[in-house]
Amino acid sequence: MKATVVSFNSDLHEQMLSLGKKARAAYGLMAEARGEQKNMALVQAALALREHAKDIMTANQKDIEYAKGKGLDAAQMDRLKLDPKRIEAMAAGLETIATLPDPVNRMLDQWTRPNGLVMQRVSVPLGVIGIIYESRPNVTSDAAGLSLKAGNAAILRCGSECHHSSLAIVKCLHEGLKKAGLPEDAVQMVPTRDRAAVGEMLTMVGLIDIIVPRGGKSLTKRVLEESRIPTIQHLDGNCHTYIHKDADAEMACDVLLNAKMRRVGICGATESLLIDESIAKDMLPKVADVLSKAGCEMRGDGKARAADKRIKAATDEDWDTEYLAPVISIKTVKGADEAIDHINQHGSHHTDAIITADINTARAFLRRVDSAIVMHNSSTQFADGGEFGFGAEIGISTGRLHARGPVGAEQLTTYKYVVHGTGQTRA
Amino acid sequence: MKATVVSFNSDLHEQMLSLGKKARAAYGLMAEARGEQKNMALVQAALALREHAKDIMTANQKDIEYAKGKGLDAAQMDRLKLDPKRIEAMAAGLETIATLPDPVNRMLDQWTRPNGLVMQRVSVPLGVIGIIYESRPNVTSDAAGLSLKAGNAAILRCGSECHHSSLAIVKCLHEGLKKAGLPEDAVQMVPTRDRAAVGEMLTMVGLIDIIVPRGGKSLTKRVLEESRIPTIQHLDGNCHTYIHKDADAEMACDVLLNAKMRRVGICGATESLLIDESIAKDMLPKVADVLSKAGCEMRGDGKARAADKRIKAATDEDWDTEYLAPVISIKTVKGADEAIDHINQHGSHHTDAIITADINTARAFLRRVDSAIVMHNSSTQFADGGEFGFGAEIGISTGRLHARGPVGAEQLTTYKYVVHGTGQTRA
Repeated sequence: MKATVVSFNSDLHEQMLSLGKKARAAYGLMAEARGEQKNMALVQAALALREHAKDIMTANQKDIEYAKGKGLDAAQMDRLKLDPKRIEAMAAGLETIATLPDPVNRMLDQWTRPNGLVMQRVSVPLGVIGIIYESRPNVTSDAAGLSLKAGNAAILRCGSECHHSSLAIVKCLHEGLKKAGLPEDAVQMVPTRDRAAVGEMLTMVGLIDIIVPRGGKSLTKRVLEESRIPTIQHLDGNCHTYIHKDADAEMACDVLLNAKMRRVGICGATESLLIDESIAKDMLPKVADVLSKAGCEMRGDGKARAADKRIKAATDEDWDTEYLAPVISIKTVKGADEAIDHINQHGSHHTDAIITADINTARAFLRRVDSAIVMHNSSTQFADGGEFGFGAEIGISTGRLHARGPVGAEQLTTYKYVVHGTGQTRA
Repeated sequence: MKATVVSFNSDLHEQMLSLGKKARAAYGLMAEARGEQKNMALVQAALALREHAKDIMTANQKDIEYAKGKGLDAAQMDRLKLDPKRIEAMAAGLETIATLPDPVNRMLDQWTRPNGLVMQRVSVPLGVIGIIYESRPNVTSDAAGLSLKAGNAAILRCGSECHHSSLAIVKCLHEGLKKAGLPEDAVQMVPTRDRAAVGEMLTMVGLIDIIVPRGGKSLTKRVLEESRIPTIQHLDGNCHTYIHKDADAEMACDVLLNAKMRRVGICGATESLLIDESIAKDMLPKVADVLSKAGCEMRGDGKARAADKRIKAATDEDWDTEYLAPVISIKTVKGADEAIDHINQHGSHHTDAIITADINTARAFLRRVDSAIVMHNSSTQFADGGEFGFGAEIGISTGRLHARGPVGAEQLTTYKYVVHGTGQTRA
């Protein structure tokens, strides 16, 4: 029995190594691809998605049957399910990525040294990207499309529930790559559902350059703990909207309602409302009207509850909670200083917004709140690569290194220094 | 006995936590410091270094006595030793950093979305930087100076050999910070020589944002294996100089001699010469003349040895070896394609150069060699933050994420997105 297990794992190890080596070879070719070639691959892959929509739906049906057996909840089933509209959205996403400027070979900086050396900093692809995700099949096409656009090779590992759908989508990407004369190995899917494959990926140092986890907290946590390869981190999205005393009341209600309730399950949803004490008595009943009408539970501190009886008591834990549900915590503050300190202490450095007509307070907030995205008079739900104009996103980084906020094609590049000399030697 | 050990370690743990919390608080203030304030701190610290040069020398003498007991070799002792010239160089380094533009609050990008949202990408400090180094006291002032310039807080952990020297240097940095009205906690030194402190630093997730190891391979390896915090990697410097058939012979000899022999122990030193077969017979005797005259051992393949008898036989291992010594490996290649493939396979993605008068071959080399620094007609020994115009460097990154090549103040920043709205909500 033991021998079988060992041989099985060593098979998997060899299989993953081979995948990695093929990806590295493909990356070498992708790095040299012209922009038009990469765009052609994207556009052709989009056509293939439309052409093979029926096959993709059939594959998706297999996944749905499998998932039913695993007892997924309604939200997970919804994420898994594909329909013609969602397939069209994937195709349109690839076409949008094709319209973006080529993120590689950009001259980021150039200067000349006193000794005559000309220094250039030029963007280049990041390398081989390992993407680990869960049950959303559209991540396959978004992630592969962005990776391809930036001249990288991608190794995709989806959740076991969307295995068949993802394979069918990858087939379309291969069709696009082939038609553009680019290597199909630039987009590879881990061919097994074996969970040990994730462990292999996380230790493929020298073959995979970066790991991007895209999924729930348990996945992200595992990747952060186990990975020997640098990762793009996506932790919590405990986002705040702060209504300052000089906010326009109507705008504040509109923006807050959207920030909290448009979709409660996304990471850019507002989880906590901060509001100036001086306007709480006037403003909170208006806020509570729109929120309760939309079905949102409210949990507040003493002063908030004094302003409106529909607000229940919050505990200390509420200030640190990402509900991802129709619940909001409400804290009254003395002013912007307290709001900023509260966000920097309890937030998750994701997205935080201020609503105010006072430009100076807005400036202080935007400067001092230490988050990936800071906003003035805008809904936190705009924290999204598509809304930023990146065509799609591979995730939103809450880490501080390399990429912060939405990760699009540009964030999947790095740079090199190109030095032009005329025979210079160092003294 | 066990109780004592536990209490000792828990003391250390508490001590490190307190250091980390003070650093985070200081970072909050540093992030808001004006450029002139930070420059004032640097200039005042430089003055303090000059003023307290005698105290620093006395502290350094203590370290040297201690190091003698530890049996350091001559090179290590040389790195540890300070003299008035080296102290002056530290002071001048801080002054140079002060003259550089402020790397934070730069508008990196700005665009407007169809819905009217104005998006800005703005550079901000990286956060709290943990720097782990060995016996070179000047790293204390270089690393702290760059960190300060970029608005960060630094936690410094030096080798036990340079503990007293580093403390004396940190005192001068504190004097500078104080005179500029900035928090002294922005530069802190781990107060104990206990090696367990390194392990503590590598797990201070949420308190330290990035770990920069600066030292030999065993240190770098330990950090890469143990750190739960993102690191800037600095692995090998197996650098190549490729003499193409269209190289100017005199320039090739000059540049190669400098690239290999100016200083053999630095990471930018050339370790391997690639040369076109077609010019080996003419060119290698000239190359061997200058290298052997300078005391450099040569190890080559069959065709290289056939061209000059002073070249000994190389083994396969030589192509992957960073000698950091007066030794060079010599490989003949059919042309640029083979040279590029060899470098991408055997190099360490650090710094590689081509010598040629043919601009098209140079372009192909610069584009296709996948290294942090690629050079044309220039010595690889220019791979250095000072030579790049960064004032100093905290290391040279061979990793692909966040920073590649010399790490100066600009590389110790990250960015945030600032979004200006007028009440926009997401559809």
